[in-house]
Amino acid sequence: MEKNKLARGVAVVGAGMSKFGSFPEKTSRDLFVEAFQEMKHSVDKELDTRNIEAFYLGNFSSDQFEKQAHLAPIIANWVGLSPIPATRVEDACASGGVALREAVLAIASGMYDVVLVGGLEKMTDLPIDQVTEALGTAADTQFEIPAGFTFPGFYAAMATAYLDEYDATPLAFSHVSIKNHKNGALNDKAQFGQTIAEIMKAKKERAVKKGLPEPTWQTEMDFLTDPKGNPAIAWPLTLFDCSPVSDGGAAVLLVAEEIAHKYSAHPIFVIGSGQASDGALHDRATLSYIPAAQEAAEKAYEMAGKKPTDMDLAEVHDCFTIAEIIATEDLGFFERGEGWKAAMAGKTARDGEHPVNTSGGLKAKGHPVGASGVGQVVEVWKQLRGIAGQRQVPGRPSVALTHNVGGSGQTCVVHIFERRNSDE
Amino acid sequence: MEKNKLARGVAVVGAGMSKFGSFPEKTSRDLFVEAFQEMKHSVDKELDTRNIEAFYLGNFSSDQFEKQAHLAPIIANWVGLSPIPATRVEDACASGGVALREAVLAIASGMYDVVLVGGLEKMTDLPIDQVTEALGTAADTQFEIPAGFTFPGFYAAMATAYLDEYDATPLAFSHVSIKNHKNGALNDKAQFGQTIAEIMKAKKERAVKKGLPEPTWQTEMDFLTDPKGNPAIAWPLTLFDCSPVSDGGAAVLLVAEEIAHKYSAHPIFVIGSGQASDGALHDRATLSYIPAAQEAAEKAYEMAGKKPTDMDLAEVHDCFTIAEIIATEDLGFFERGEGWKAAMAGKTARDGEHPVNTSGGLKAKGHPVGASGVGQVVEVWKQLRGIAGQRQVPGRPSVALTHNVGGSGQTCVVHIFERRNSDE
Repeated sequence: MEKNKLARGVAVVGAGMSKFGSFPEKTSRDLFVEAFQEMKHSVDKELDTRNIEAFYLGNFSSDQFEKQAHLAPIIANWVGLSPIPATRVEDACASGGVALREAVLAIASGMYDVVLVGGLEKMTDLPIDQVTEALGTAADTQFEIPAGFTFPGFYAAMATAYLDEYDATPLAFSHVSIKNHKNGALNDKAQFGQTIAEIMKAKKERAVKKGLPEPTWQTEMDFLTDPKGNPAIAWPLTLFDCSPVSDGGAAVLLVAEEIAHKYSAHPIFVIGSGQASDGALHDRATLSYIPAAQEAAEKAYEMAGKKPTDMDLAEVHDCFTIAEIIATEDLGFFERGEGWKAAMAGKTARDGEHPVNTSGGLKAKGHPVGASGVGQVVEVWKQLRGIAGQRQVPGRPSVALTHNVGGSGQTCVVHIFERRNSDE
Repeated sequence: MEKNKLARGVAVVGAGMSKFGSFPEKTSRDLFVEAFQEMKHSVDKELDTRNIEAFYLGNFSSDQFEKQAHLAPIIANWVGLSPIPATRVEDACASGGVALREAVLAIASGMYDVVLVGGLEKMTDLPIDQVTEALGTAADTQFEIPAGFTFPGFYAAMATAYLDEYDATPLAFSHVSIKNHKNGALNDKAQFGQTIAEIMKAKKERAVKKGLPEPTWQTEMDFLTDPKGNPAIAWPLTLFDCSPVSDGGAAVLLVAEEIAHKYSAHPIFVIGSGQASDGALHDRATLSYIPAAQEAAEKAYEMAGKKPTDMDLAEVHDCFTIAEIIATEDLGFFERGEGWKAAMAGKTARDGEHPVNTSGGLKAKGHPVGASGVGQVVEVWKQLRGIAGQRQVPGRPSVALTHNVGGSGQTCVVHIFERRNSDE
C-alpha cells in the first residue's frame, strides 16, 4: 500500500465542548455529558447515537486527578453507549489529539463507520501543589524531575534557549498573551473571557477599593511588564505566559467519508494526520524547537498534499506563550527565529496572515489537558463551517490545522482539516 | 464496506516477554528491554528495528505505580525507536489486549506496515495497601469503591452469585488453581514456577523446621481446603484463587499480511478481534457472567468465521479462579453453569478437550496488569508455532484465542490467531 495514506477517508460531522474552567461541583462525567450533548445537537442531519460504534477517550490522568482510572467504559456508559468498544488513549497533554488519530485510523481500517472521540480532564479538585506534581509525571521522572524541573521550568528553559539563540525579547511572549486573551474574550466557552485590558482595569479598581495607590499602568504592555501586575513564574515566563489549570470536556463525531453526507450537509474532512515521539529534553541538540512537532507536521502536510501557506488558520498548543511562538516555526508558518517577530507584528492575529488560536488557545480558553486536543478540533470545525460568530476568521477559511503537544515535546500530533468547495 | 471486517490482514511475526515476578531492582524500562530483546531474537527472518513504524503500549497506571505517566514515548526512546508515533492505551487490566487491537486496526488502516505492541506494569514498588488502592481505581470510584469493594471483593461477589445460581462447589476453583500452577511450573517466565504439591511440601518442611507439628495434608486438595494452608481472602475466594501482584513486560511484533513472509517463515495471523464495554456491577442483571466478554467473543468469532469448538487452546483472564470458569462459559467452550464441572473433570487441562491457560495463566505466570494481555499473545504464538517446549499442547494446534478483561468486566477484548497449513 502507498505509504502515509489512509485506506479510507474520514470526516468530522459534529463537535461540542463543555465550558472550560474550574467547576468544583462537577465531575468529569458531568463535563463530558455537556460536551456530548452539544456535539449531538451540532449534527445538522440526523444522529441516532445507537449508530456510534466505538469511543476513544483522550485523558491524561484521571488516575491522579480523580482517583478514577479505566475511564473510557465509564464515560461510554454514562452517555448510553455501552457495550461499544471504549478505549482510553494517553500521551500526556497530547492525549486528545492522539485519541482523534486513533479514531481516524480505526475508521480507515474498515472496522467502524461512526466513531466518537472524547477529551476530558478534571484537574481542579486537587491542591495546586499536587496538580503540579501530577503534571510532572508527564515528564521523565527518572531524569528530568529529580533535576528539579516542573513544567513551567521546562518551558522556561526552552524560552531562555530561544531568546539566546535568536536574540529575541520576552515582549514577544506578552504579545501572544494579549492576542489569545483578545480571542478568548469572544469565546463563551473560554475559562478567561476577559482581555488583558479588562483584567488590568479590574486590578486597578481592586487596588483603589482596598485604599492602595492606583497602579499607573496605561497599556496592556505596561501591565504585563510590571511584576506587580504580572509576576514571574519561572524566568522569563510570567503568570500571563502560562495556561491555567482547568476542568473541561470535548467531543467530536467522526464518520467514514462515503457516509458523511448522511450526517451532515457540511462535513469537514480530515485530510492529514501526523504523530511523532521523542526522548527527554536533555537528549536534544537544542531547546529552541520541538523536533517531534516538526516531524508530525511534515507527515501531516505530506498526507494532505498541502503546505504551511495553505493553512487558513491553526489551533496550536500554547501551554506557555513561548510554545506558541515555537509552534509557528515548527509548523513552517515562519522561518526559524522569525516566530517572535511575527507575533509582535500581529501576523498571528485573527485578521493576520496566519491566524493562530482564534479560540483563545490553551492560554485563555483553558487547558484541561486531555481535552485540549479535542477542543482544538471543535474550534477549527466551527471556523471551517463559518459558525465561529464574533471570532470568525474573515474570508471563509477552507483549510485548518491543529497541533497538540505532550510533555515538553515527547509527543506531538498534527491534523489538517478541509472544507470542500462542493459543500458551500 | 463489509461490517466487522478488516481492510487488510495482519500477522504476528515476533513475540517475547520478561520474566514475570517481583523485581525491586528493576524499573519498567528494564523490564521492557528484556521483552523487546526476546521479541527481536524471536523473529526468524530478519528484523531491522528501524522498520518499526509505530508503537502501542498497554499500561494500566504507571501514573500511580511508578509516578510516571506519558510512558509510551519514554519506552519507545529507551529501545531506540524515536521519533515513531508512540501511544499508550489504557483499559485497566485489558490494556494489553486493547493495545494489540489498536495496532491491528492501525495496520489495517494502511498507515503502517510494521507495528510494535508492548504491555508493561511495575506494581511491586508500592506497599500492598497502596497497590490495592491503585487497582481499585479501575472500578467505578463514585459508586463501587465507596460501597466498600476492592477487587477480590468484586470477584467474590461474582463467585457467590455463580455458586448460588448453578449449585456449584468452590472445589472447582481449586481445580483451576492446581491446573494453572501445574502449567506454570513448566514455564520459566512464570512468577510461580511451582506446582501446588511443591508449595505444600515446602510449607510442611518449614513447619517441621520451626518445631511445629507437621501438617497432615496428603493431597493438593487437602492443602487448598485447609484455611491454615490456604486462607480466605474474600469468601469464597482463597489465597490460591487470586493472581499475584507482579512486575513484567511483553512485546509482540505485528506486520501487514502481504509482507509477513519477509519477516517470518511461520507468521501467525490475527483472524478475529472483538472488544466490548459495560457499566459497573450494580447495573447487571446477574453477576454470574460477564456480558462484555460474551459480546467481544461473538464479534471475534464472527470476524474469524470460527466457532468455539474450533479453538485448539485459549489464554483467558484468570485474575481469580472464578474468572477462568466464567470465561470458559462466556467464550462458549461450555454451556452456562457447566464451566465448573468442566474444570473439575479436567477438560481445560493441557491434554483436555479445551486447553486453557497453558502458560500458567495470570494465576501462576503472574499478572502485571498492563502486560497480561500481551503476555497471553506470547503464549499462543509459541503454542501455534509448536515451540512451547514441555507445555506444548499435543496435536500441533492451529487456532488459538486470547481473552483479556478490564475491571470487573467494564472492558473485554478477545483475539483469535491462526497458523495456516501452508506454513507447516
